[in-house]
Amino acid sequence: MNFASDNVHGVHPKVLKALSDCNDGAMGSYGADPVTARAEAAYRELLDAPDAVIRFVATGTGANALVCAQLSPSYGRIYCHDSAHIHRDECAAPEFYSHGAKLVPLAGENGKFTPDTLAEAIRFGAAGSLNDGQNAMVSITNATEWGTCYAPDEVAALAGIAHDAGLKLHMDGARFANAVAGLGCDAADLTLRAGVDALCFGGTKNGALAAEAVVFFDPADAKGFDYRRKQAGQVYSKQRYLTAQMLALAEDGLWLDLARHANAMASRLGQGIEQAGGTLVVPVQANEVFARIPAAAHDRARAHGAAYHLWQDRPPAAGEPVTVRLVTSWATHEDDVGRLIDLLRGA
Amino acid sequence: MNFASDNVHGVHPKVLKALSDCNDGAMGSYGADPVTARAEAAYRELLDAPDAVIRFVATGTGANALVCAQLSPSYGRIYCHDSAHIHRDECAAPEFYSHGAKLVPLAGENGKFTPDTLAEAIRFGAAGSLNDGQNAMVSITNATEWGTCYAPDEVAALAGIAHDAGLKLHMDGARFANAVAGLGCDAADLTLRAGVDALCFGGTKNGALAAEAVVFFDPADAKGFDYRRKQAGQVYSKQRYLTAQMLALAEDGLWLDLARHANAMASRLGQGIEQAGGTLVVPVQANEVFARIPAAAHDRARAHGAAYHLWQDRPPAAGEPVTVRLVTSWATHEDDVGRLIDLLRGA
Amino acid sequence: MNFASDNVHGVHPKVLKALSDCNDGAMGSYGADPVTARAEAAYRELLDAPDAVIRFVATGTGANALVCAQLSPSYGRIYCHDSAHIHRDECAAPEFYSHGAKLVPLAGENGKFTPDTLAEAIRFGAAGSLNDGQNAMVSITNATEWGTCYAPDEVAALAGIAHDAGLKLHMDGARFANAVAGLGCDAADLTLRAGVDALCFGGTKNGALAAEAVVFFDPADAKGFDYRRKQAGQVYSKQRYLTAQMLALAEDGLWLDLARHANAMASRLGQGIEQAGGTLVVPVQANEVFARIPAAAHDRARAHGAAYHLWQDRPPAAGEPVTVRLVTSWATHEDDVGRLIDLLRGA
Amino acid sequence: MNFASDNVHGVHPKVLKALSDCNDGAMGSYGADPVTARAEAAYRELLDAPDAVIRFVATGTGANALVCAQLSPSYGRIYCHDSAHIHRDECAAPEFYSHGAKLVPLAGENGKFTPDTLAEAIRFGAAGSLNDGQNAMVSITNATEWGTCYAPDEVAALAGIAHDAGLKLHMDGARFANAVAGLGCDAADLTLRAGVDALCFGGTKNGALAAEAVVFFDPADAKGFDYRRKQAGQVYSKQRYLTAQMLALAEDGLWLDLARHANAMASRLGQGIEQAGGTLVVPVQANEVFARIPAAAHDRARAHGAAYHLWQDRPPAAGEPVTVRLVTSWATHEDDVGRLIDLLRGA
Repeated sequence: MNFASDNVHGVHPKVLKALSDCNDGAMGSYGADPVTARAEAAYRELLDAPDAVIRFVATGTGANALVCAQLSPSYGRIYCHDSAHIHRDECAAPEFYSHGAKLVPLAGENGKFTPDTLAEAIRFGAAGSLNDGQNAMVSITNATEWGTCYAPDEVAALAGIAHDAGLKLHMDGARFANAVAGLGCDAADLTLRAGVDALCFGGTKNGALAAEAVVFFDPADAKGFDYRRKQAGQVYSKQRYLTAQMLALAEDGLWLDLARHANAMASRLGQGIEQAGGTLVVPVQANEVFARIPAAAHDRARAHGAAYHLWQDRPPAAGEPVTVRLVTSWATHEDDVGRLIDLLRGA
Repeated sequence: MNFASDNVHGVHPKVLKALSDCNDGAMGSYGADPVTARAEAAYRELLDAPDAVIRFVATGTGANALVCAQLSPSYGRIYCHDSAHIHRDECAAPEFYSHGAKLVPLAGENGKFTPDTLAEAIRFGAAGSLNDGQNAMVSITNATEWGTCYAPDEVAALAGIAHDAGLKLHMDGARFANAVAGLGCDAADLTLRAGVDALCFGGTKNGALAAEAVVFFDPADAKGFDYRRKQAGQVYSKQRYLTAQMLALAEDGLWLDLARHANAMASRLGQGIEQAGGTLVVPVQANEVFARIPAAAHDRARAHGAAYHLWQDRPPAAGEPVTVRLVTSWATHEDDVGRLIDLLRGA
Repeated sequence: MNFASDNVHGVHPKVLKALSDCNDGAMGSYGADPVTARAEAAYRELLDAPDAVIRFVATGTGANALVCAQLSPSYGRIYCHDSAHIHRDECAAPEFYSHGAKLVPLAGENGKFTPDTLAEAIRFGAAGSLNDGQNAMVSITNATEWGTCYAPDEVAALAGIAHDAGLKLHMDGARFANAVAGLGCDAADLTLRAGVDALCFGGTKNGALAAEAVVFFDPADAKGFDYRRKQAGQVYSKQRYLTAQMLALAEDGLWLDLARHANAMASRLGQGIEQAGGTLVVPVQANEVFARIPAAAHDRARAHGAAYHLWQDRPPAAGEPVTVRLVTSWATHEDDVGRLIDLLRGA
Repeated sequence: MNFASDNVHGVHPKVLKALSDCNDGAMGSYGADPVTARAEAAYRELLDAPDAVIRFVATGTGANALVCAQLSPSYGRIYCHDSAHIHRDECAAPEFYSHGAKLVPLAGENGKFTPDTLAEAIRFGAAGSLNDGQNAMVSITNATEWGTCYAPDEVAALAGIAHDAGLKLHMDGARFANAVAGLGCDAADLTLRAGVDALCFGGTKNGALAAEAVVFFDPADAKGFDYRRKQAGQVYSKQRYLTAQMLALAEDGLWLDLARHANAMASRLGQGIEQAGGTLVVPVQANEVFARIPAAAHDRARAHGAAYHLWQDRPPAAGEPVTVRLVTSWATHEDDVGRLIDLLRGA
């Protein structure tokens, strides 16, 4: 009953098998191998982006930080939601990789900011003096850190505002598969066709061992990126094993199947919590549930070994309801979901 | 017949199996898992260094660059051999991670510099003005980029000079196992007992998928290192899979067995080349052979698909002997070695 | 009638004279000159800090950013007020110099945050995971960006909280002289004795051409700083001219006389604005006035050439009162103050 | 009798006067002042470069490092002479500002490298893998660190090679005036017309207090530079005083008159040294003399207070001739030159 994060679970058997399958014989290193070529092609096809430059790295922080450094100068302003992983949870990796770019946090409900909020922030930045730095990039997370999703038209609206002002749009897709699954849309509609310039397409949280794809839809945006990645120590010598993971996810829609399962588990958990007297703090649109649950329910769940995070600034007072985050994944078993719901209900 | 590098070969079956073996169930992320704890303990034992801080990263460039940033300020001078991987082959990752540290290349035969050379360079750096930067660190590669080894007493001599002048000693051990195997010494004799402060203990070139251990023998030198690693995007969320690789290598001396095999293959190849009329450019002490071979031998080998690198600044003139680098690994088959020797001999 | 900033005014005649006075003959470069030695001694005495390390740089941004880089690692958290110059107005220089340190803005009235606010923020940072970065430093501006002052006991309270949690306390003293003048306290009471670790003692806004002193009260905190300053391109070769400016300000209390004049002008301006029907937005405690004035008064002042900044996020609607910032300096003439007041009053 | 450096001397009276002359009244800060506008125009005219972007900074290290960061990515290779100030004497400021660019030192007599040397180095860099970084920029110093000069046709030859391979050409002109004076050429012939992309036009060593002009001949190369300069803490708030220095040097050819004097003094000193039994190590073409002088002559000069630097790696053995560097400047008095010659001759 571990709902602490989607990264506490293991690797999908097909991904593990892909590692064995590519293990025979010598192959060119640093990406000069046939597995990598196939994986790049697979993602170009998946995203209906025949011109896109696709590269693979091992960590989401590495992926996001590299894109920030690629699309923003050191004196750039990067707009993101106040809860954005790049702002809150990457130990200032974007600032380190970009050598100082300023992350400008924006407010907004349910982990999303509105076009108006973005437009005003960009206007403020553009009107500023040298002292404010230069508008460079907008970053959205999809699915967001609050388990909600930007729909294609919402992405397009933000992209329009960004592009009109000369900024690039980045999508942190650590849970991109969950967003596509939750929205029931096409991956290309949510990215290239909506105006996204760079996408970090997450694999790790969705059944891979450690793999993310970095996608630049316009090759011009990828200029020099291979050197940047190498300098960052993010190029594998035996790269086939990195890309084989992503290739396995791409094949036969495995990535989407796994995300659908994770989302279904979250949906069911959300409903169960409401039936157990809890309240959803934000709508469940992907694979995360944020809920306020009675203290007694929380105590029962914890006592029986359920793992999840409290999601509030201060420790709860005795007897007070608690706000929690529950994350499901490809590996979440429906029995565990059922058992947790039973515990919360006191059944 | 691929002798291009030790990283063109695959992953040892025991390492692959270790990935499967740790795949069940949920585990804490970012290193809070039992596999990581066991792996750290295994390397402390292997190095007879009960106090050492051990951390795992995925790439050698990442490992080396993180150590440079940890042990040198941005204005530091880092002394290394002119052929050092950190100076020649990491796309300036040490400079990037450290934000500007100056790599000062030292000359020396067979990929090694002498205590005298180091002492004079440090003296020169210490006598300098602010303009020269501050002496910070010495880095040696063992086995070296030329396939030779620093013996424990040689390491100790360099460590003594470094420490007397207040510098730290780093060992880039991308081929550390090959050095230990080649020298027939104890791992601790070559590191902690010889005065090494930080070691990058390579796994990738020795049968792992992508894994290196970073070792700080004095915990004080590791202060803040976990944050640094996180900020660099070098922390895996599902870290068990990174550390499981290194644990598999540590168990039952697998790391040493694999290195011994690689070294034996190189030794045999070196002898064969000499018998075929070639000349060794440097002594074969680990798993690399640098040799000058007749043009005809080279043409035959290439024509039959042998892969290896030319190792000279300019393209060879027609008919001229060529200097080549041949690298063996845990996966090099003795039949391939025999076949290449036959080709070179024209048999 | 220029109240746009204290840096629109020129250089005090005594400072200019000091440049001429030190112009004869050859002197050692990069600070090896007698003027620099005297200036360092003068500031140690002024601050009653015989052990302090004093260095001079040309710009306030350079001074602050160097201190941030000196006292925070790249993965550090630096707490400051939301309006802090280092956060809002230095084009991310602290992030650039420190290679990524995260500035964490704190709320608080009148440009100041309270001990409680700081304590809670530090507690939150300390409780965090690797992802949050490491608590490193607290920075306060005194006088603040809103023209208010932290009194010695207020500084001491913040220092206590910072030190208890292992953080350093930095004071951005671009208008330090105005704070000392406004508080009527001793410079040492406001710094060393209150627990400040590093002070940027501003000269430029107070009659110098371009000069700031960086003060580390504990020499251990200055380790390697001279190299850092050199690497940042902040070391003058003809340093006597930089330090002569600061020496001139230190002599005979010129720095304090100039600040007292500036403060007196601001005080008078504030009173005049209230008499003219305006409202002070924050109390006038140094050399800045933030006020809300009637639209007609604003129009009259502008029409007659008064220069000052609007201080509101949006352009004012027609007829609506406007919020403005007025800054006085050593060079502000009381006639100009009187004239502006007359204009505002419609006299 | 101080020949230690050109920066041990003071400020030319006309430069000092310019500071006083611009001291009246309020002016816009951060460069929004009429002095800066005039100075920028003066240098565009001086360099016959009506489109050039001109910016002023206070230190040569700052100027050079900013240009390196502007024209090279963090993973770039910057080719320069092995004796280049940016490589040897700036405490790795270019690496710091550019976040890791690799300075690749080239050999060559008298402080200059040849087109062939450059072409081969660039070819080697271009042929390399990701590991080598990306060719970005060539930097030459003119006059060189050995007091010699690249003539316009020599610069053009290097520019041609650089541009053909897609690299930019930077000229470190800390002693640019001395080069123009020594060559007797036009400033534009040595820069824009010879293909230089960016010039650091030195003022400090030539009579200014602390001022250098950064020139981008193609405005496209200056994109974002103002933000970069601000982020580096290299923007003066009271910028009129920085630019007034450079304006004073530009007016009536003062910059060239001062350099001619310095060069004449060096020339005379060189001749005197030869007459005194010394040997010139390199030809005297600007304002520096590198010579090998008898031990007795050296002892006499030092005993009488002559200041200059030994220019050899090791301390001289007793009685052995010594190699020295002697630098002249605008302020070097011919009596001092005569006196030193007399001392060396034993007169």
